[in-house]
Amino acid sequence: MFDKLITTYRDEINSQLLSVYNSGPISLVEPINYVLSGKGKRVRPILTLFTAESFGGTKSESMSAAVAVEILHNFTLVHDDIMDEDHIRHGKPTVHHKWDVGTAILSGDAMLSLALKMIQKSPQFNEKLMTSFIDGLQAVCEGQAYDKEFESREDVSLDEYINMIDLKTGYLIGLSAELGAISVGANDEDVVKVRNYGRLIGRAFQIQDDLLEIYSDSMNMGKSLESDLLLGKKTYLMIQAKESVPSQLNSALELAQSDFTLGLEKVRTLLIDSGIRQKAEGKIKSVIKEADLLLNELNIETEKLSFFSNLITIRGN
Amino acid sequence: MFDKLITTYRDEINSQLLSVYNSGPISLVEPINYVLSGKGKRVRPILTLFTAESFGGTKSESMSAAVAVEILHNFTLVHDDIMDEDHIRHGKPTVHHKWDVGTAILSGDAMLSLALKMIQKSPQFNEKLMTSFIDGLQAVCEGQAYDKEFESREDVSLDEYINMIDLKTGYLIGLSAELGAISVGANDEDVVKVRNYGRLIGRAFQIQDDLLEIYSDSMNMGKSLESDLLLGKKTYLMIQAKESVPSQLNSALELAQSDFTLGLEKVRTLLIDSGIRQKAEGKIKSVIKEADLLLNELNIETEKLSFFSNLITIRGN
Repeated sequence: MFDKLITTYRDEINSQLLSVYNSGPISLVEPINYVLSGKGKRVRPILTLFTAESFGGTKSESMSAAVAVEILHNFTLVHDDIMDEDHIRHGKPTVHHKWDVGTAILSGDAMLSLALKMIQKSPQFNEKLMTSFIDGLQAVCEGQAYDKEFESREDVSLDEYINMIDLKTGYLIGLSAELGAISVGANDEDVVKVRNYGRLIGRAFQIQDDLLEIYSDSMNMGKSLESDLLLGKKTYLMIQAKESVPSQLNSALELAQSDFTLGLEKVRTLLIDSGIRQKAEGKIKSVIKEADLLLNELNIETEKLSFFSNLITIRGN
Repeated sequence: MFDKLITTYRDEINSQLLSVYNSGPISLVEPINYVLSGKGKRVRPILTLFTAESFGGTKSESMSAAVAVEILHNFTLVHDDIMDEDHIRHGKPTVHHKWDVGTAILSGDAMLSLALKMIQKSPQFNEKLMTSFIDGLQAVCEGQAYDKEFESREDVSLDEYINMIDLKTGYLIGLSAELGAISVGANDEDVVKVRNYGRLIGRAFQIQDDLLEIYSDSMNMGKSLESDLLLGKKTYLMIQAKESVPSQLNSALELAQSDFTLGLEKVRTLLIDSGIRQKAEGKIKSVIKEADLLLNELNIETEKLSFFSNLITIRGN
């Protein structure tokens, strides 16, 4: 229904992103524009614009905040790709791989300053925008820190995992909605509700990501399932498999070391047979339902945001 | 004269720094507190407090901004040390060396969010504080980018070099003074003057650093002269030597490759014989004089800031 609108908004966001930083040291201008011209889906800034409009505001009132949140998101990708040693992002070499680690660190840092300036450019600038943005920055750093800590821990609980993805993914999607609402003068109570809506959507988004990583072609996801699986990356599904079918999981992962395709197939079957895949699918649906209930508590036009929630559930089909 | 006051203020800043971040992921809390308990001289936050007091304000009005600027400075050190592959800072292993590159990147990022929050905590918070702070962040990133670009360039002019150190060092010291003035409600014109005073002090500080690196024991400077010299790092002195005595410089640097002590001695003598050392000393004095002239244009109590300027010139003696 809003597919065409999303395409239009995405194009506009992309064009805004390309005008953010065009003069400065070439070793920053080049990689930053390379990153900002990547083929991201622009989910977060579109949520910002949709939220602003749902509250009766306009796209132009919330565009700066939308662009800021997309830059913040890309900043995290550039730095995370270094830490995770990922070489491909959206089908292109990552910054630290194409240039070097130093260039990637510095480009990310400079992108933060650009995002902060963009927040300040909001037509109805309000210190709450900045406070929420800074909180979001801290949350994504802490989420990534927990994610890295979990790599070397074998006792991560599902609650700890949910807390981690809330910080790493949920807060930023919550922030996207929150900034849209604040940009157009929503009251504090409504801002909290729509923020929590976004955080839940982010949680569902991440669990969906965990599911797709195992069950879809890794090329579509644009990142390496192989390394994640072999390194024992904790995901919503793997934590439960480790708890309920530890020995079968270990033998499947051992097999994956020598024959990846066969091992993966065994992991896939195991997750289905043990009911873990079904449980994850149920969890995604229930989280989205919870998010939509929050939406209904708000006295706003919910069509666009409901459409947005649906986008998450049909992803990968 | 203000030596005792400086010690008192430094102790207070150190104690504030240690209360900034005590709960969160252990992989952030530990390295961040490790960095913030380092043996830095706290030159920048002391300048913030001194400036606030010079404008008739108080230490407590400007302490948050002072702490923020010190966190920002330390953020740049953590990230720069990765890029420059420095293993020792203030006599301790650097974060990426003691932990790993990922931890150092993420700790730096999180420190930025802490610094931004600290700015917002200023008792008389004003959006100008945030704007100046963000500009400062962008400037240090751009300065570092130029510094790295210069490593692989052989035609860096003295003007380009001054522009680079202004961004990398000057802006942050200018920001320290600026935030002190804004914190206590100074008018815009005075803010610009005291900021420019700080930037000039920063320029003198960096040229002094370039001089001390060559002429003092590298242990005192806490970083590696050997690698800088051998990698052909551009400094105020080396750029001029390359311009005016290129062949003698090259033979001295070649000698340093095989016998570092002898090569360094030859570089030192060359810089003296060619008048470059003297010219650098003259430049430092003239820049500080220019800075002090700006101070005298201000209708404020200049004693503390003049004392601060003097600190720069006697450093290393």
